[in-house]
Amino acid sequence: MSEPLRLGIAGLGTVGIGLVKLIRDNAELIEGRAGRKVVISAVSARDQSRDRGVALDGYAWETDPVALARRDDVDVYVELMGGDSGPAKDSIEAAIAAGKDVVTANKALLAHHGQALAEAAEAKGRVIRYEAAVAGGIPVIKALTEGLAGNRITRVMGVMNGTCNYILTRMQSAGLPYDTVFEEARQLGYLEADPNLDVGGIDAGHKLSILSSIAFGTQVDFDNVELEGIGAITIEDIEAAEDMGFRIKLLGVSQMTGRGLEQRMSPCLVPATSPLGQLAGGTNMVVIEGDAVGQIVLRGPGAGAGPTASAVIADVIDIARNFRMPVFGRPASMLNKARSARAAVSAPYYLRMNLLDKPGALAKIAGALGEAGISIDRMRQYGHADTAAPVLFVTHKTTRSAIDTALGAFAATGVLLGAPVALRIEMV
Amino acid sequence: MSEPLRLGIAGLGTVGIGLVKLIRDNAELIEGRAGRKVVISAVSARDQSRDRGVALDGYAWETDPVALARRDDVDVYVELMGGDSGPAKDSIEAAIAAGKDVVTANKALLAHHGQALAEAAEAKGRVIRYEAAVAGGIPVIKALTEGLAGNRITRVMGVMNGTCNYILTRMQSAGLPYDTVFEEARQLGYLEADPNLDVGGIDAGHKLSILSSIAFGTQVDFDNVELEGIGAITIEDIEAAEDMGFRIKLLGVSQMTGRGLEQRMSPCLVPATSPLGQLAGGTNMVVIEGDAVGQIVLRGPGAGAGPTASAVIADVIDIARNFRMPVFGRPASMLNKARSARAAVSAPYYLRMNLLDKPGALAKIAGALGEAGISIDRMRQYGHADTAAPVLFVTHKTTRSAIDTALGAFAATGVLLGAPVALRIEMV
Repeated sequence: MSEPLRLGIAGLGTVGIGLVKLIRDNAELIEGRAGRKVVISAVSARDQSRDRGVALDGYAWETDPVALARRDDVDVYVELMGGDSGPAKDSIEAAIAAGKDVVTANKALLAHHGQALAEAAEAKGRVIRYEAAVAGGIPVIKALTEGLAGNRITRVMGVMNGTCNYILTRMQSAGLPYDTVFEEARQLGYLEADPNLDVGGIDAGHKLSILSSIAFGTQVDFDNVELEGIGAITIEDIEAAEDMGFRIKLLGVSQMTGRGLEQRMSPCLVPATSPLGQLAGGTNMVVIEGDAVGQIVLRGPGAGAGPTASAVIADVIDIARNFRMPVFGRPASMLNKARSARAAVSAPYYLRMNLLDKPGALAKIAGALGEAGISIDRMRQYGHADTAAPVLFVTHKTTRSAIDTALGAFAATGVLLGAPVALRIEMV
Repeated sequence: MSEPLRLGIAGLGTVGIGLVKLIRDNAELIEGRAGRKVVISAVSARDQSRDRGVALDGYAWETDPVALARRDDVDVYVELMGGDSGPAKDSIEAAIAAGKDVVTANKALLAHHGQALAEAAEAKGRVIRYEAAVAGGIPVIKALTEGLAGNRITRVMGVMNGTCNYILTRMQSAGLPYDTVFEEARQLGYLEADPNLDVGGIDAGHKLSILSSIAFGTQVDFDNVELEGIGAITIEDIEAAEDMGFRIKLLGVSQMTGRGLEQRMSPCLVPATSPLGQLAGGTNMVVIEGDAVGQIVLRGPGAGAGPTASAVIADVIDIARNFRMPVFGRPASMLNKARSARAAVSAPYYLRMNLLDKPGALAKIAGALGEAGISIDRMRQYGHADTAAPVLFVTHKTTRSAIDTALGAFAATGVLLGAPVALRIEMV
């Protein structure tokens, strides 16, 4: 039996404490599977005096995570503080420089500095593992880097922000408007301190950019994720989508096209009966498509102490087993800069607008669509009590730029009340 | 860059040829991910003259798989012939004895001889990997042995025979009886030469016994899988289940109870809206529940050349990366013999029967249920044109032995036409 693997854990919030408990509760099981003991040498957090509900006095305490990362009695530095710069970045860099392996749950850091960190780690022969950074407890990094490693990946999709999915499914099930459910989510503690990280799609976009790198062998390129949040989705959209057999999800899609890599994180319509359409509440789902395997769907909890600790300890056990590989599955030096292809992939679109009740109004809109080269698959006009008639279109496949052209033309018609809504339909 | 990893592939059916093609088509990608080239040294099949649609003349040919397994230019022996004894077993034993690593898709062999093979391999410091043996392209072995390795697994469930799921969903969607759809499946080539391997639940039971071993750290114990096939399921059961919000699936459940390990492969009712209930056609699904992670659901193609080759090459790439671990995730010497607990876990049951149209008939049945200690959650009696009234019960949670007692008592009442049907309801 080898020497114990010694951890230094920085960050003792919900996840950090969840990890400490898991390592204690399942110590024997972890040793059996890892082939050696996994022990905690030292921990780090700002406030040592706070009662965190678990005894920590068996571990050395460091106030400074950089000092923790450099300790001689630490083999693996576990970073659970978060943040795309500052102490998280400094301490991981210090750990690598000191020859430690790293496990982190930090999607923002990897989305912004993944390439540089991977190069630094690989130059020192160290690994950085981050299963917990994407889709919580779902072993999706492992599925992409290992389980489907022989596949040419063609598309990766995912609902990877549980808060947004909670908001959208709660709006639907309770028939409540966005603002009300957003406030509920805030009171339940589901939202980040900066809620735009959630509802603006940024957090999920970070995750998508990491998956893209592994899937397509490109450098992480978060800046080219087309981001669109869920703040403009109304209960009317949700009900109209349902009426046509769709659900609205904040969906990430990453796809290598002839023109380059397209990465989108935006509200999309998906078929109501598809696995993505059926996904309710805070659960996450990732769909991976490869040339050999076809389609694989992974579903599970995207956040929380237990699921996140489960992902972190899996990375630790892999290190204990001496499973070592490049950070993004291929050597960082071999990862190409992605050529970004925004809006490259055509799709059907859902369009919703309120038409003024004037003769010829619908003809003007239909004309604008035709001039933009967009053909109509389905149209519905609903009964109305006031001066505006809600109208829905589902188009045949078209491009985002054609949609933008049409939206511009709509504005010039003078027959719209308010702004129209255009959402992509992703066939899954 | 390390030396190439050299394969010997035995079995050139659909899967073997799929693997040869995948290794050719994705050679560069596989090298990038594996960190070394993966090459084929030699292949083996009975008939060298047959045109298999792919050029094989670059590889040495062995008629005898045992000879292939012993070749000096083979590092990894890939067994894709199948069968729980004979050449598959002999050649894998020969490969291990000759110091080769082994990759196989052979669930029957592992279900019957997994423990002995694991002991032999581990004594020689060799690995046996078998991702393709369970649920085709879904990386479920990897999820259990690695991705969820820090969890105490509480339950594993799965729909793992695509043919049975095809038959059951086709009966439902087309309203056709079992025999008709069975014949369709035979003509489509979906059935094994011995169809009882599929519809008798044996093939799926093999897979379940392998998952149990990994999940619970016990020796593979196929003999104690309670097997029940789908042959007794009628279109009436499917329609009655649907009417009460359920679907019927051939579902494997493995669960560690206070009395020991319970392994069942049987037709069960699951909620129609659950991921398992929504699973249609030949797709497979595995549900894993762990103390830290909660519930993870994996869905994908359970068979076919591409998905199976995807799983095989993932194992090969892991070996190329020198990821080495015990066959069932923990050393074979540490695996305990499972104490088998048949019918340990209680559950609600679905009961369907035809009652003779006599006064007091229903009272006799209800009385028999009460005497067996079974309480009724829901009851439905359908209109009828002849002398027998179809009656359904959904019970509260009870044991299989109480159900068997009640079925015995029903027979003595003299008010039944034909045999009653009792199916477990699995809440998922």
